[in-house]
This record gives sequence, C-alpha cells and structure tokens, in this order.
Amino acid sequence: MSIRHLAGAAGLVGAVAFAGHALADEGMWTFDNFPAAKVKAAYGVQITPAWLDHVRGAAVRLSVGCSASVVTAQGLVLTNNHCVADCAQNLSVPGKDYFKTGYLAAKREDEKTCPGMQAEILTAITDVTPRMLAAGAGLTGQALVKARTAVSSIIEKESCPDPKTFRCQVVDLYHGGQYKLYRYRKYSDVRLVFSPGVQTAFFGGDPDNFNFPRYDLDSAFVRLYEDGRPVVTADHLHWSTTTPKAGEAVFVAGNPGGTDRQLTVSQLETQRDLTIPLTLAQLSELRGRLIRFGEESPEHKRMAGELLFGLENGYKVYFGRQEALNDPALLAEKRESEADLKAKAAPKMGPAFGDPWGEIGQAQQALAALYVPYRQVERGPSGSKLFGYAKELVRAAQEREKPSADRLPGYADSQLPLLEHEVLDVEPVDAPLEQLTLEFWLSKSREYLTADDPNTKLLLGRDSPEALSAKLATSKLGDVAVRKALWDGGLKAIQASDDPMIQYVLRIDPAARILRTAYDEKVAGPVTQASEKIAKARFAVYGDSLYPDATFTLRLSYGAIAGWTYRGRTVEPFTTFKGLYERATGQDPFELDPRWVAAEGKLNPNTIFDISTSNDIIGGNSGSPLIDAKGDVIGAVFDGNIHSLGGDYGYDGAINRGVSVSTGAVTEALQKVYGADELVKELTTGS
Amino acid sequence: MSIRHLAGAAGLVGAVAFAGHALADEGMWTFDNFPAAKVKAAYGVQITPAWLDHVRGAAVRLSVGCSASVVTAQGLVLTNNHCVADCAQNLSVPGKDYFKTGYLAAKREDEKTCPGMQAEILTAITDVTPRMLAAGAGLTGQALVKARTAVSSIIEKESCPDPKTFRCQVVDLYHGGQYKLYRYRKYSDVRLVFSPGVQTAFFGGDPDNFNFPRYDLDSAFVRLYEDGRPVVTADHLHWSTTTPKAGEAVFVAGNPGGTDRQLTVSQLETQRDLTIPLTLAQLSELRGRLIRFGEESPEHKRMAGELLFGLENGYKVYFGRQEALNDPALLAEKRESEADLKAKAAPKMGPAFGDPWGEIGQAQQALAALYVPYRQVERGPSGSKLFGYAKELVRAAQEREKPSADRLPGYADSQLPLLEHEVLDVEPVDAPLEQLTLEFWLSKSREYLTADDPNTKLLLGRDSPEALSAKLATSKLGDVAVRKALWDGGLKAIQASDDPMIQYVLRIDPAARILRTAYDEKVAGPVTQASEKIAKARFAVYGDSLYPDATFTLRLSYGAIAGWTYRGRTVEPFTTFKGLYERATGQDPFELDPRWVAAEGKLNPNTIFDISTSNDIIGGNSGSPLIDAKGDVIGAVFDGNIHSLGGDYGYDGAINRGVSVSTGAVTEALQKVYGADELVKELTTGS
Repeated sequence: MSIRHLAGAAGLVGAVAFAGHALADEGMWTFDNFPAAKVKAAYGVQITPAWLDHVRGAAVRLSVGCSASVVTAQGLVLTNNHCVADCAQNLSVPGKDYFKTGYLAAKREDEKTCPGMQAEILTAITDVTPRMLAAGAGLTGQALVKARTAVSSIIEKESCPDPKTFRCQVVDLYHGGQYKLYRYRKYSDVRLVFSPGVQTAFFGGDPDNFNFPRYDLDSAFVRLYEDGRPVVTADHLHWSTTTPKAGEAVFVAGNPGGTDRQLTVSQLETQRDLTIPLTLAQLSELRGRLIRFGEESPEHKRMAGELLFGLENGYKVYFGRQEALNDPALLAEKRESEADLKAKAAPKMGPAFGDPWGEIGQAQQALAALYVPYRQVERGPSGSKLFGYAKELVRAAQEREKPSADRLPGYADSQLPLLEHEVLDVEPVDAPLEQLTLEFWLSKSREYLTADDPNTKLLLGRDSPEALSAKLATSKLGDVAVRKALWDGGLKAIQASDDPMIQYVLRIDPAARILRTAYDEKVAGPVTQASEKIAKARFAVYGDSLYPDATFTLRLSYGAIAGWTYRGRTVEPFTTFKGLYERATGQDPFELDPRWVAAEGKLNPNTIFDISTSNDIIGGNSGSPLIDAKGDVIGAVFDGNIHSLGGDYGYDGAINRGVSVSTGAVTEALQKVYGADELVKELTTGS
Repeated sequence: MSIRHLAGAAGLVGAVAFAGHALADEGMWTFDNFPAAKVKAAYGVQITPAWLDHVRGAAVRLSVGCSASVVTAQGLVLTNNHCVADCAQNLSVPGKDYFKTGYLAAKREDEKTCPGMQAEILTAITDVTPRMLAAGAGLTGQALVKARTAVSSIIEKESCPDPKTFRCQVVDLYHGGQYKLYRYRKYSDVRLVFSPGVQTAFFGGDPDNFNFPRYDLDSAFVRLYEDGRPVVTADHLHWSTTTPKAGEAVFVAGNPGGTDRQLTVSQLETQRDLTIPLTLAQLSELRGRLIRFGEESPEHKRMAGELLFGLENGYKVYFGRQEALNDPALLAEKRESEADLKAKAAPKMGPAFGDPWGEIGQAQQALAALYVPYRQVERGPSGSKLFGYAKELVRAAQEREKPSADRLPGYADSQLPLLEHEVLDVEPVDAPLEQLTLEFWLSKSREYLTADDPNTKLLLGRDSPEALSAKLATSKLGDVAVRKALWDGGLKAIQASDDPMIQYVLRIDPAARILRTAYDEKVAGPVTQASEKIAKARFAVYGDSLYPDATFTLRLSYGAIAGWTYRGRTVEPFTTFKGLYERATGQDPFELDPRWVAAEGKLNPNTIFDISTSNDIIGGNSGSPLIDAKGDVIGAVFDGNIHSLGGDYGYDGAINRGVSVSTGAVTEALQKVYGADELVKELTTGS
C-alpha cells in the first residue's frame, strides 16, 4: 500500500481546519495539543509529556512523502518498503533490479545512499501566528499569497541559520487559525539497508491494495548518515517482540499528508464534479498505457514499476474519495454542519465578517474556468523527470534573480536547499518512459483544451504529441552534470542552453506563469482570506479543543487493535504467515518470492503478520511507527482499509482502519527468510 | 465523430418518455406524429404526408447502430464512413488496410459484402399497446419482464411470417406509454461501394471529434443486394447539388439511439454517481492499453483501429454526459419538473397510483448493490469477439431448448435470425487483441470485485488475468465453420466442445444468470412497472403532443442551418475545403491523405464541406440524411458539437448542434480526388 503522501496531486484545493466534535479514536493530533485525558478515559493509558517527547524525538519524516522512526542507537530507521521503492529503483541497473528482488546490505559499506531522499526529525514548535497575520493585513489576491510566502520565508531563514543541518517550515494549521514554525534536524544522506522486494512487500499487488485481510511485509530499513558515519539520534523507539493483542491501545506517530475534513461544501463539490473526475480519467488512461508498456519487455517492466505503482495507488485513493463524495449522506452532513457554523457565527463575528462561504464559492467558479489549462500547462506532465528538472531549473534561475520576498512560493531562500537537493541527486532517466509520459500529457492537453485553443497551439506548435515527445525525450537533463552546470550557471546558462527540454520549458513558461498568476489572484488568494475568516469563526463558536486538518506534519493518533464489521461481514484484526501461504496461487501478484517458498518450513506459521487498528491515519502516514502504551514500536503502518479512503473528508470509527505490518513478522522474516542476523541483533539489542 | 448508437453501453438504466414542453427545434418525432403545423409556423415549410412517406421509404437503419438513406434507384445507400469502418476493417487483410486507405469498387463485381451488416427500411407502424399492457397485468419483477418479452416475441413472429425479408419489432415508446409494432423490409447483403478512408473521414481524429469547425468527409456508400443483384427500393432521395444557405430549414430522418430526457432524478443520480464514473474509468484504462498496443507495430495499429475509435468516441460521450449531470442547474431543473408532475398527477391518478418515483428510487438502491458484479460477470468484456461468440452460442443453445415465450429477452424466435446472422458472419479475430481485452476485463473484475469475492474466484480460479487470457485467446471460435457447427449442433455440441472459450463461458454462465435474474427481479421489473405509471400520469397531465425518448427507431427532427455563440465566441455554420488545407499540419491526425494533397489544385476551395445545424440528434443518427424542404438530401449527419453531448438529458436550442458533411463536398471529392465518375453519374442522375 500506499498511503504515501502524494504531494501536489490533490493540492489544488487547500485544506481547512476541522470543526465538528471529535469521535472516539478520531483525530490527527499535534504533539503540543494531545488529548491525554481523553486517552486515559478511553484506554486507561497515561500519555506523559516525557512519552510524547521521546516519541517525537524518534519520529522521522522522509522527503519522499513518508513517515518513519529511528529504532536503534545507530540511526537505523524503520519505514515501509514502498517508501524506499523509488530509491531501490534508482539504485537498480540492468541486471540488478532491487525494486523487484529487494536489497540487504551485507555490511555497513554496502549501505547505499538513496538519491534525493532527506530525513527530518522535529525538534521544536513555535507559534508565529501574529507575525503571519500581520503580513497579510489589508491585502487580497496574489498580493496576499506573496506577502504570506515572503514572511514565511523570512521567518524560516532567521530560525534556521544553518540550512545544511536544520530545516524550518512555517505551517498553516486550522487553515489560517494558527501558524506555527516547525524546526527539524535534517539528514541528507539516507542509505538503504534492507528492502524485502516488491513481491513480498506488496504481495497481492494492486488487487489487495487498500483491502484487508492482507499479507504484506511492507517494511524496510534505511540508516541516517552524517560525515560518512551513522548518526546517533537523541531518541529511538524500543523494538518490541511482544505479541500484540486485540483491543490493546496503540498509537501512530507520523505525518498525515492532507485531509479535507473542513472544506466548504462548494469546495467539496468542486472536487466531486471537476477535479477528481478529470484526475481519475487521466490516471486511468496513463495507467493503461503504462501497463501495456510494461508488458513489452522486462526492461520496460522495470522502468514502469515505480510510476505504475504510484498511479494505481493514486487511482484507488481518488476512486475512494469520489465514492465518498458521491454518498449523499456525506454531503448532507457537511451542509448541515456548515449551516450550523454559519448560524452560530453570525451574531459573534460582527458585520465585517461578510460571507466567506460565498467568497469561496465564487473562487470555485473561477477555478472551474481555470482548471484545465492550469492543470495541463502550469502543472505539466505526471511522471516525466526531464520536464520536472527543466521546469525547476528554469523557474529557479528566473526566481533567483529576484529578492527572496518577491519570488513565487517554493523558491524562497529557505526552500532552495531542498529543491537543489532534489534537482541534483542522481536518478536514472529512461528515455522510453519519458517519451510515453510526455506523449500522454501532450495528447491529453490537446484533447481537453481542444486543438483550436491557444494553449494547445503553444504546447504543440505544428507537431503531433508523438513527434514532439520523441524530440523532448532526447534531452540530456538525465545527466546530473548537465543539471549541475545549469543550476550553477543560473539564468544565463539556462538561456544559452540548446537542450530541447530547457528550450521548450523556456518557451511555454510565460503562458504557465500567466495561469499561475490568475490562479493565485482568483482562487488561492480569495480562498486563503475567506478560510481564515471561517477558521476564526470556528474557534469563536466551538473553542479550541480540536485537531487541525492534516498538513504533512507530525501528528499522533490513538486507537486500538481492532477489526470491523461491514454489511454483516466481520473482519478479524490479525493475519498470520499461514494465511500468506494459503493465499499464494503461484501467479503474479499472488506469487511468493522463491526465498519465502524455501523458508516455509522454518517460519512459525502463527506469527502475526499484518494488523488492523482504529487509528485515524491517511496518506503520508506510510511508514509511521505503530506504538504500544509503553512507547515501544510494534509495527509500521503501511495502508488503510477501503473505508479509510473516505477519511479525507471524515473519520468513521466503526469501519475506518489503518493497516500495519508487525515487528514480530519483520523479525521472523529477517531471521528465517533473509538470514539478516546482524540486523536482527541490532534491532533486538537496540544498538 | 461518431454518434453511432452504442447498443448496450448505457443500457442498464432504461429511458422514460419526455414530458416537458418542447423548445424551438427540439424533438425526435415519430413519423406518425410529426408536428407539421409547428414547422410551418417556424419555417414556412409545409411537410405533407406524401413528403413524410417518401422520406420514410428512403430512410435506412443499419444493424451496426447507424442510420442511412437510399439515394439512387440502384439501391445505393449514403451513410457515414465510421458506420462502415467495422466493415472496412473486417474486409482488410495484411497488406490491404481498407480502414486506413479507404475503398472504391471500380465495378459492380468489386462491391464487397460487409460481414454481419443488415439494412432495414421501415414499412409500417401499428399500435399494440392494449395487448402489451394486458400481458403484464398483475405481474411484477422478472415475471413481468418475461411476460412482456414473450408477448412481444409472439406479436413479432405473427406479423413477420417471413423472417428472411422482414423484421418486426415491438417498440416501447414513452416508456410504457405506447407499444408500437415496427415492421421493416430487411436486406442482409449490404456491400461496400466507397469509403474515403479514415484519414479523410476522420481528419482531426479524436481531438476534433465532437468539435466544430470540422473538416471531415465522413461519408461512405454501400449498396443493398438481394439474390446477387442490386435492390430497387420504392423510394430514394434526390441527391442535391444546390449550395446550402445559413438559416434554411433542414430535416434529419434517422434512428437516434437513446435519450434519457425523462429519467427520474434518482435514475440520473445513479448515472452520475455510479454507472458513468465506472464506465469512464474503465474506458480510459482500456483506451490507454490499446493506444500503446497500437504503437507497437503497424499490425497492432490495424488491429486496434476500430475498437480504439469506438472507445474514444464513447469516452467523449460519457464525459460529456457526466459534465451535464454535474451541472447543478440540470438536476435542479429535473427536480423541479419531477415535483411539478408529482403534484399535478396526485389528484388525477387515484390512490392505486402509489409512489412510482419512490419505487424507482428503491430499484436504484438495488442496482447500486448489483452493478459491479452484473457489469463484470453478466455483461462481460468489451471488445472480445471470442467471448461474445461463446456467450451467444452458449446462451442461444440453452435458450433454444425452451419454448420461445420462456426464454431470456433477446432469444425469442423473432430475434434469432439477426443473432444467427451476427454470430455466423465472417469477421477477422486477432488473437493479440483478444488477449488484451480479456486480460483487461479479468483484471478489472478482480480490482472492482476484490480478490476475495466469490465471483472473482469463479472468473479466475487460481489463474492470473494474464495467464487465463492467454489460454482463452487460443479459442478456435474465430473460425466461422467452428461457430456454425456449434450453432447448428445446439446444446449437445456446445457441451461436447473442448474449445477453451466455450468451456469457460459454460462454467461461468450459471453465476451470470443468477445476476441477470436478480437484475430483472430487483431493477428492470420494478423500473418497467413504475415507469409505466409515470408515463400514464404524464399523458394525463400534459396530454400527448410530445415526442418519446429516443429508442433507435425512425424519427424526424427539424431545424435550420445555424452556427452558435457560446461564452462570447461565435462559430459559423459552414467550413470549406480551403479550411481543410489550412488546418493540415502534416502530422497525424492532421495529416492529409496523399490523394488530397495531389488534388488540391483541382478542388474548388470554396466548396462547403461540413455544416452545423440545429436539429435535435444523438448517437444512432450517424449517417442520417440531412434533407432540405423539398425532400432532397443535402448531406449526411455524422456528429454533434460538444454541447450536443448533454442532449442525452435535454435539448438546448441555443448551442446544441448536429454536424453533417455536405453532398456538394462528397460530389466534388468523388470527382476530383477519387476519380469516381461512375458513382457521381449514378448519384446525379439517380440511377
């Protein structure tokens, strides 16, 4: 699975703070506002400040959109296999497909740096709300967006004078209700230690994704390095080998990527009627092209692997969301709670309050008119690394010519180091896959904009998508040395480059910027402004004992090990190795790794494999430690059940479940299947 | 374009009669209830009974889901190229790709029979409402469905004692408001005379499909044969060479396939929230697989051609419908008119009337639970000819064991001849394409039903979709002799067959039948019953000066040659050859056929090419003659504009347009591009 955070995939419509009354086990709580009394009442477990500090100190955020945790004093980090899938694919070379076969570093020197991956541990949270609000006072539209970005950047730069080892981020919580500065210790050398390979981590493949019972060893280990040596962090979680029990209290510390639980009704309707249908249609067709591409040869299968995995996962996520939004009960409930807040807010907020819901509704009209060109031209193709490099190189070169405060969001001084890291890390670029994704993008742009649209003419000229994508795929930006020269050379080097992709992006970028400005002016700005008003009203009416919508920042959720009952069918909370062997058919994706076939007699068939829990989680929580009352790690969250997909809009404690792989299963497999005795020793001794 | 009627594609939810007040130019009128007075008032044109009889006598319905018209005394029939695309593809052999290059029979003997194509000319309409209603009296659920099917079949058999030359069909109009017997003279030997080839007929390809301005020669000619000789029909339309004028009155006589203008709100919501989203997702992914498949080799491109064309067209149709349904104004209007009818019907209909809207709503709940398994198991794969043959062979053999009245709909004695014709006609079967479509179907079944579902286990056993589809694609049912032996041999031969596809269908058919029964019992039956009640109420409240929803039977629509204005942009009603040459980029799908490049100097650049008209048309109208006030044919309808796609639910006279290719363009091209002097002579002399 795959509840990795898909940054940008849904980002067109911002998230707003949660307002209703939290249900049992509901909530993605910040560490500075955890409802310890509630947990004590529900589960009899006392969560102390020391417990919280310890867990926070061991919790890791990965720049690939995942969560993780430090589990030994040698900087060993537990996460999901699907969080290192990109890394394994990037480290692969013809003949060595680590994505498929997995990887085990026999000794320290064999631990290999994951290109582009960065790990972050949260060290401090500071309130910066007054300064942020002051920066936007009296502004609207793009001016508001830019002013907020500028002051964020200044705060971030001031607070992290050493961007090599720290990262600072101003986080918008409760959608304008609070702005907090999150300060992270960052690690830019993250090395792959162990991956079981996709066959074992993703047994059952897409058909089983988001389903349970489940039989996946979706776990992996990486190690934090600095100056060529493993990092000793202040905290690490103790690796539990105790057998988990149904009903026991469990906690998830991780970074849920985003929820939309307090969007206005008009924003939800935009998702239901406009953005999700188009997203699903495009995901589906690209998925189809990629499946067939992968069937053409083992080389193509390898190239397609990671992108296809992401598309299929994204497809299910959006399909689940669409289903949730198509349920009339959900929208009826949202309408009711919106009406309740409106009615209660009116007498408290005074005449200047106006009608923020109406303002957001108007912004949705603007979005409807802008969405297709904005998506196709400004956001560009999914899955093309060459286009992504060119766009970042061109934009960064242009933006760096301006003072930090005047730049587009994403290019402030405080944000450039991560961007540079991502642009300059070594990743393989496969020309046939590039051509496929570019051709798809160009042909969909023409389809949805129509052939007569000026943007189509700009994108294609007199070329066909087939011919133009073939030309663009000859770009040399796959070579990191070429990218480094362009990054270092700045705008002059960019303008002098004869690389076809750089030239292409330079040509279309002015039109893309016009769309970006229109979007900020008519959509992002007005929504930010109105959402802040709604957030204020919500605090005024319901108080502050609430959790904010998810923002890919550290949260703690509580719950219990529990199955569920739906339409008369009860699902138990545990699976075992025995079930894995029963489910195997010998055909992909239900085919066992030969090492598992060989190890069947050695493994304890009753080992608890995967676990269903009632924690409130969502994409971005992938790799989060599942923690028991003592604070020990007992598993790694890697998925949600099918009912969790509607969790974007609300949590249903009866059926919404997270899915984890148990530490017991990982230990047993490391010993009996992979012979990773050193690793087991490190885990069980903690050092 | 392609407004060909996609039989079965949307057929899950039946259509109900239209009830509101018809707007200017709105309406797909039956020939026995044409609003001549309205036309006289609007356009000053007198449509006489003789005019109607003449046009009806020349109007042709094609079994491939298209319309057409006889245009000479030698049985020459004008239709769209995309209506003969299947035929051209089926007649192609390696090295001769008629779908791509087109076809021109140099002499009569070169005219080639289109496999499986049947042409029908309507000769009489008789009211059979009382007999049909009596047959269902007191029945519900599947019993009602079966009783109606049985009496239809008896009426059809009685009225067409000679099924070789006549076809009889009981047509449900106004969704249970009227049942009429349509009697057709039928022609089973339809031969291809001329196709310009896809490059010219579908210039601009999918990007231009459903868009205008347009530059397509989407026309073709076939000829009706009987006993090896061309047929002389009683009527044919005169081939006009007069230049059409903006504003002139025009008529379209053809067979609109289906509209949903009077579905209840709950039925529309089912389409919006359930059936269309799933259809779009599956169409998109299959489209993607097929596009990539076609890029693998010229042979694959040829194999994929026709199926891809249908998928892309269907995708746009459903995308347009989804957009229409997502427009809150449309559903608000539907809710209002439903409320109006309910309020007015209550005092007129008496206490036995009950709540038919509520009954249909309940049936929608049942449909929601049944839809995925019904779609995947009972409806089976899209695009697999082998599966289609096997299913029809197995079902027909089983059903023929029973008395006609007890059979499933589709297998009554009156329906068997067309079925036999379709099953036993020669069509090429391409194993690689079969494997692709079967693999797709099996993998989507597993995805949407989930791996643990009993239907998934039935469909796949312990096979993967990849392995099973490879086995099934080895079926020998592509050989017509094998099919004929199985058809003639009946159930015994079927049961004894070792063909893998026959064995497979035999194995899954019991489960498919259970789903079919559940569907009839819980959805089709209740909807039929409640819809009849609503139809009665509608007649009682609004009278009978209305047209019925489309049913792929002969209709006449009126309107004018007209462009439109939308969001400030005005589109003119005509394009010319000059525009074609300007639009050509040299790259697919904007690349000209070399014959057109060569002919540029000879063609009159001002020849009117394609025409936009305000006629109310929809899928199934493809190939319909565009007729002037005199009753002469001035073009062939081949598409609608983008706004016509919402026409499924209602007609907007301001922007809803049909698109035709002009007879003038066809004549000029036949002469100057194709050197088809004989054909031009036949057209202009009429014999």
